[in-house]
Amino acid sequence: MTISPLASPFPVLPAIAGVTPRVARAHYKNWDRCDLTFVTFAEGTTAAGVLTQSKCPSPEVEWCRKALILGNARALVVNAGNSNAFTGARGRTAVEAIAARTAQTLGCQPSDVYVASTGVIGVPLPIDKAEAGLDAAFVADVCSWQDATDTIGTTDTFPKAATTSAIVDGKTVNLVGIIKGSGMIAPDMATMLGFIFTDAAVDGAFLQGCLAAANEKTFSCITVDSDTSTSDTVLAFATGRAGNAPLTSSDDDGADAFAAALADLCRQLAHLVVRDGEGATKFIRIDVEGAESDRSAHRIAMSVANSPLVKTAIAGEDANWGRVVMAVGKAGEPAERDQLAIRFGTTQVAEGGLAVAGYDEAPVAAHLKGSDVEIGVDLGLGEGRATVWTCDLTHGYISINADYRS
Amino acid sequence: MTISPLASPFPVLPAIAGVTPRVARAHYKNWDRCDLTFVTFAEGTTAAGVLTQSKCPSPEVEWCRKALILGNARALVVNAGNSNAFTGARGRTAVEAIAARTAQTLGCQPSDVYVASTGVIGVPLPIDKAEAGLDAAFVADVCSWQDATDTIGTTDTFPKAATTSAIVDGKTVNLVGIIKGSGMIAPDMATMLGFIFTDAAVDGAFLQGCLAAANEKTFSCITVDSDTSTSDTVLAFATGRAGNAPLTSSDDDGADAFAAALADLCRQLAHLVVRDGEGATKFIRIDVEGAESDRSAHRIAMSVANSPLVKTAIAGEDANWGRVVMAVGKAGEPAERDQLAIRFGTTQVAEGGLAVAGYDEAPVAAHLKGSDVEIGVDLGLGEGRATVWTCDLTHGYISINADYRS
Repeated sequence: MTISPLASPFPVLPAIAGVTPRVARAHYKNWDRCDLTFVTFAEGTTAAGVLTQSKCPSPEVEWCRKALILGNARALVVNAGNSNAFTGARGRTAVEAIAARTAQTLGCQPSDVYVASTGVIGVPLPIDKAEAGLDAAFVADVCSWQDATDTIGTTDTFPKAATTSAIVDGKTVNLVGIIKGSGMIAPDMATMLGFIFTDAAVDGAFLQGCLAAANEKTFSCITVDSDTSTSDTVLAFATGRAGNAPLTSSDDDGADAFAAALADLCRQLAHLVVRDGEGATKFIRIDVEGAESDRSAHRIAMSVANSPLVKTAIAGEDANWGRVVMAVGKAGEPAERDQLAIRFGTTQVAEGGLAVAGYDEAPVAAHLKGSDVEIGVDLGLGEGRATVWTCDLTHGYISINADYRS
Repeated sequence: MTISPLASPFPVLPAIAGVTPRVARAHYKNWDRCDLTFVTFAEGTTAAGVLTQSKCPSPEVEWCRKALILGNARALVVNAGNSNAFTGARGRTAVEAIAARTAQTLGCQPSDVYVASTGVIGVPLPIDKAEAGLDAAFVADVCSWQDATDTIGTTDTFPKAATTSAIVDGKTVNLVGIIKGSGMIAPDMATMLGFIFTDAAVDGAFLQGCLAAANEKTFSCITVDSDTSTSDTVLAFATGRAGNAPLTSSDDDGADAFAAALADLCRQLAHLVVRDGEGATKFIRIDVEGAESDRSAHRIAMSVANSPLVKTAIAGEDANWGRVVMAVGKAGEPAERDQLAIRFGTTQVAEGGLAVAGYDEAPVAAHLKGSDVEIGVDLGLGEGRATVWTCDLTHGYISINADYRS
């Protein structure tokens, strides 16, 4: 697999006290690589999560949704190569078996075990392979973050992780996140799975609030191809080993710093997914301002980000702002054609309902030749604003998704 | 330009009494072809229209919307090579100039003149070229339907027209429609423009009702790439020369027959646009039933039809029903995963929330190898149903839209 031209090198990541990753071979596919990730957490670890809004979610997503009601975590199991989605009762039984075996081994409740799977849809996860893989993982050596990141990946072209830190209650707390996904998608329909680990002490409900808020501005603001997976999952785990007084509300000292650090980490991870978008050659940032509301701005930005015509124009390094007008117009949100302004990079190309007369095309052409492209839309109506990120649409996307038989 | 593999031969079309088409060269682009279509109508002709819902419509769309309030028609002018969209006051002036010059020549009101344009966005239509083209058209010989159809086209790979008839009040009424569009799109953002001509006598308001109803089940049910144009226009003109007693309501004798014939014509035209979808190699019909409402069924069908993963799977002749599950799940409409059933052609591949055990793959593979593919989705919830049509997503689409500089 060719590495994405937008790939970043794997970062140096700190250990997170209370978090222990291991990997093993469950042989979910006919491949010679680790495909089961097993992470254990110290007692007292809290969990938060955001999960796909698909009406056809995987049983793993349903399992995590239930476990998050209690919000305690002792283990995370991630299967790569089989999403176990749309597999009926057999799929549910497989998830329950994984949680039961893990709980028995760790001496915890099944609801303390989180499960996520990624890969082909419609094939029940084989319980015998899962159990054999788990048994191997239970006794495996502790592994590196990079090993864990490689193991959750499927068609990713590079391993994706990020880190940040914050000062909370006089203590430095560390956050590490790992993520997989080339968009929402892969040759057999895979998923975006992201996992965040911190040694901060954070009450589960407050962690959930911070993660949901961060998600709104990060994972919910990226798109590769508009196709939402059945299995999208982002889970955050806080072990409390940094020794800070537990954060329980935004009034606590350091709560803002922690929330900001978590949001920053989510943004880094979300960007990495776009940078590994299938066939991507350009990382595109779309800023919308002047909308009637933030929600309206977000919808308009996503309409631009999901437009095949805009995405192919950027792939062709073509400053085709008419396609941006089209995408704004079709969004179904309030817009006044004659107040609309559009820029590429820092160059205004259209405003007041028509092209800027004689704008300098040279900086626009230079901007579009780069790997990072910015499109700005000002609706001139109100204070609403949003930023989203996407990638271009290229022959690579078609090759990955059409040029094979399953 | 390579002709679409899904192209149909140009049909034999009857003359429509009271309709006189002519074409001329306005030289909107540097090409040696007719690019201005001028159609005159007998006195008493009524008009109806459906126009883009884009919030950034072309001035032509705004002009037609106003003219349709009166609903009288004496002429239609169609410009190819320049959409005149997003051109501010200069664009509006050009449309007004075309209507004024035509009205003066014919001795009618400017509001009796309908104008549509297709081509590049953001370049004001040159008034001098439009006027010279019109002057040539005024004195040109009457042309054939095929000449008119060729002249409204831009990046279409074949000319698209259809005909049908009905018995109304003991008289045979004829309907002819011509249309252009390769989806909503072309290298510089063009449009779907469709024009329907009939010799039936039909009251304008009733004609509008029939056209709006037909549109709901035809043009509003096709998609090539989810990108809605700034200039989409379908206009219908009824000259009354067939001699039937004018149709004024659905209670009139023959009203149902006329409405059915109009809907049939719209369906034929809509299918032709999909068959010329950019890069299309497969014509795809998507039937959704068992939804909570027809509206919900339509949204789910469009979610499947617009999914890049579904469209690339069909391009790859891959019975990847997991992607259909994904697209149903992301539609945001009521769905119960465990009641969902999916078929390709006549073969049920998934039902009750999982794959049909051991379904026969041979007829599915054979079906997908054909040029016409059917996907059926049964939600098992209610009586709502919808059918939409789309094409596959191929390297051809990327080549047309990304592999050039504007």
